[in-house]
Amino acid sequence: MEKLQRTLARITPVDKNTEKEAQKHLDNLTKPVGSLGVLEEIARKIAGITRNAKPTIPQKTSILMAGDHGVVAEGVSAYPQEVTAQMVLNFLSGGAAMNVLARHAGAKLIVVDIGVAADLPDHPILLNRKIAYGTANMARGPAMTREQAVAALEVGIEVAEQFIAEGTGLFGTGEMGIGNTTPSAAIAALYTGLSVAEVCGRGTGLDDQKLLHKIKVIEKALEINNPDPQDALDVLAKIGGFEIAGMAGVMLAAAANRVPVLVDGFISCAAAIIAANLHPHAVEYMLASHLSEEPGHAAALKLLHLEPFLRMKMRLGEGTGTALAMTMVDAALKIVHEMASFSEAGISGKLE
Amino acid sequence: MEKLQRTLARITPVDKNTEKEAQKHLDNLTKPVGSLGVLEEIARKIAGITRNAKPTIPQKTSILMAGDHGVVAEGVSAYPQEVTAQMVLNFLSGGAAMNVLARHAGAKLIVVDIGVAADLPDHPILLNRKIAYGTANMARGPAMTREQAVAALEVGIEVAEQFIAEGTGLFGTGEMGIGNTTPSAAIAALYTGLSVAEVCGRGTGLDDQKLLHKIKVIEKALEINNPDPQDALDVLAKIGGFEIAGMAGVMLAAAANRVPVLVDGFISCAAAIIAANLHPHAVEYMLASHLSEEPGHAAALKLLHLEPFLRMKMRLGEGTGTALAMTMVDAALKIVHEMASFSEAGISGKLE
Repeated sequence: MEKLQRTLARITPVDKNTEKEAQKHLDNLTKPVGSLGVLEEIARKIAGITRNAKPTIPQKTSILMAGDHGVVAEGVSAYPQEVTAQMVLNFLSGGAAMNVLARHAGAKLIVVDIGVAADLPDHPILLNRKIAYGTANMARGPAMTREQAVAALEVGIEVAEQFIAEGTGLFGTGEMGIGNTTPSAAIAALYTGLSVAEVCGRGTGLDDQKLLHKIKVIEKALEINNPDPQDALDVLAKIGGFEIAGMAGVMLAAAANRVPVLVDGFISCAAAIIAANLHPHAVEYMLASHLSEEPGHAAALKLLHLEPFLRMKMRLGEGTGTALAMTMVDAALKIVHEMASFSEAGISGKLE
Repeated sequence: MEKLQRTLARITPVDKNTEKEAQKHLDNLTKPVGSLGVLEEIARKIAGITRNAKPTIPQKTSILMAGDHGVVAEGVSAYPQEVTAQMVLNFLSGGAAMNVLARHAGAKLIVVDIGVAADLPDHPILLNRKIAYGTANMARGPAMTREQAVAALEVGIEVAEQFIAEGTGLFGTGEMGIGNTTPSAAIAALYTGLSVAEVCGRGTGLDDQKLLHKIKVIEKALEINNPDPQDALDVLAKIGGFEIAGMAGVMLAAAANRVPVLVDGFISCAAAIIAANLHPHAVEYMLASHLSEEPGHAAALKLLHLEPFLRMKMRLGEGTGTALAMTMVDAALKIVHEMASFSEAGISGKLE
C-alpha cells in the first residue's frame, strides 16, 4: 500500500507551458498551421508530459500483463481458460501477433505473469509476479481481496519503474487473460452509467445466446458485489482482474515519472478508468491508440476524454493497438526534429 | 494516347481466389478469426492484387506530383502560387513533412514536376516532366486541352512503370499544387452529386468569406465547362489539374501491373475518381489511408467504396497519409509471415 500511496502522491498535472512552446515550434514548420492534426497533438502532448518541448524519440516497452479469471467458470468466453497459459508460451516463442507488432514498432516486449492459473517456465521476457492462480469468480463474490488488488497495482508500478530506470520513454499496455472482457465490461458499465448490455461485447467470439448469458453474469457480479465507484480500489478488487490492476499500476507509474503511456483496447481502457479514478491527473499521461470492435470501448474512451486515431477494427488485445500507435508517435516526434521552418526554407507566408 | 489505351487494356479484376487463400492462412494464425481487422483486410487485398497469398514486404515508392493551377488567379487559395515551387525546393532539400514521413516509412520519395509555373533545378529526386507552366484558369475555360490531359496521365504511367521495373511493390500518391483543392472539389461534386458547398473545404486555411468565394468559383467552372461525367478525360481536361492527372496515371499503371497503390487525401482521391472512371477495375488496386479534414474527402472515398483506417485529422497532402499507412501495410504483411499457427503453437481451439 505504501508504494501505491507514494506513487499517487508524485502525480502532478502535465506542463501546459511546454505544450504551448511545442505548438509554437510546430507552427513555424513548413506546413499550414495545424495541418498535421493528430501528429501535432501527439507531439504537443508528449512535450507537456515530459516537460521537453522537443521530446526525443523514446525507447519503447510493451508490457503485457497475463492473468486468469475465476468468472470463466460461468461460461463467459469462447475459449477455454488453458489458452491464457498457452498464449503466454506463444509470446515466449515469438509467434503471437503482439510479438510481430512489437518488433515492427521497435518495442521491447515484456510479459508479466501476474495471475495465470498455471505454472510457467523461466524465460528472459517473462517476469513471474504471480499474485494467485487466477482471480475468484466475481459472479459469486469479490474477484480479489483489497490486499491482492493493491499488490497487483504495485506489481505494475514496480515493473514500469524498472524499465523507466533502464531508459523507457514510452509504454504500451497490453494483456492476455481468457474471460477478461467480462470484468472490463463490469467496470465500464459502472463508470459510464451505461447498461451492461450496451458495453458488453462478444470478446473472442461468443454467439448471440452466450452473449446474453455473459450480460447476465456481469449484472449478477455487479449486484452481488455492489462495488463503490467512489472507491476505485473497491471496484478493482470486486469486479477487476490481476492484469487489469497490473496495467493500471503501469499507468500510475508512468504518470508519476512523466512518461507517456498508450492505452490499447477495451481491457486496457478498463485499467485506465481505474487509474483515472485513483488519481485525477493520471489520464493526462495517457494516449489513446485504436478504437476496437468491443462495443464498450468507445464509451470508455469518451469517459476518459481520450480520442483514438486508428480505426483498425481489431479485437485482439495483447497491446496490438498500442504497437501500431507507437509508429505514429515516432512519426510525430520525427516531424518535430526533422522538418524545416518557413524561414529556413524561404517559403512565402499566407496571403492577407 | 496509345500508352494510355494500352495501359487501360491491361487492367483486369483482382484475384478473389488468392484473397480466399490468404484469408485461410490468416484464419489459422494464433488469434480469434478476423480479430486483426483491417490488418487482415490489407493482407488479403494485397494478396488478391499481387496474386500471391503470402505477399512479400514491398519496396515502397512515394510519387509526389507537383503542378500549378490557373484558377488561383481567382483568389481561391490562402497561399500565393509561388509556394508550389518553393515547396518543391523544400522537398529537394529534405525539410518538408513528406520527406520526414517517407523516411519514417522506408519509402523512396520522387517528386515529379508535371506542371509547376516556374523552372526548377536538376536534382536526383526530381523528374522534369512538365506539361506546361500551370493549367489555364478553369473559371474562364478548360484547365487543359484533352491532349494535355492524356499527356499528363501518361507521365504518371511512365513514372510508375519505371519504378515498378526497378522493384517497387507499393506506391504512395501525393501532390503539391497551390489551389488544387479547387479542381478536386469540382471533380468530387460532379461525381458524387453533392453540391459544391458540401464538398468544398478551406484548403490550406481560407476564412469564411473566401470559402464562399471559392465555392462560387467552382460552381462557375462547372457551369462554363459543362464537363461530361461519362467521359473522365473530358472532366480531367476541363476541371482537373496536371498533378491530379499524374496521380491518376500512377494509379492506372499500378492496376495494369498488379501493384497496390495508396490513396492519400482529397486531391489524391479526386485522381482516384478519374482513374476509376477511366477503368472500372482500377479501384480494386487502391487502398485508402487516412480520412482528411477536407469535407469532400469522406464522400469521395465512399463513392470509391474505400474505407480509410487512419483518423489523423490531417489536411496537408504531399502523400503524408499514405506514408503513415505504409507502416500499417508492412505490419499487415509481417503478420502473414511471422505469426505462428494454432497447430504450431499447440493452442486449444474454440469451445463448442
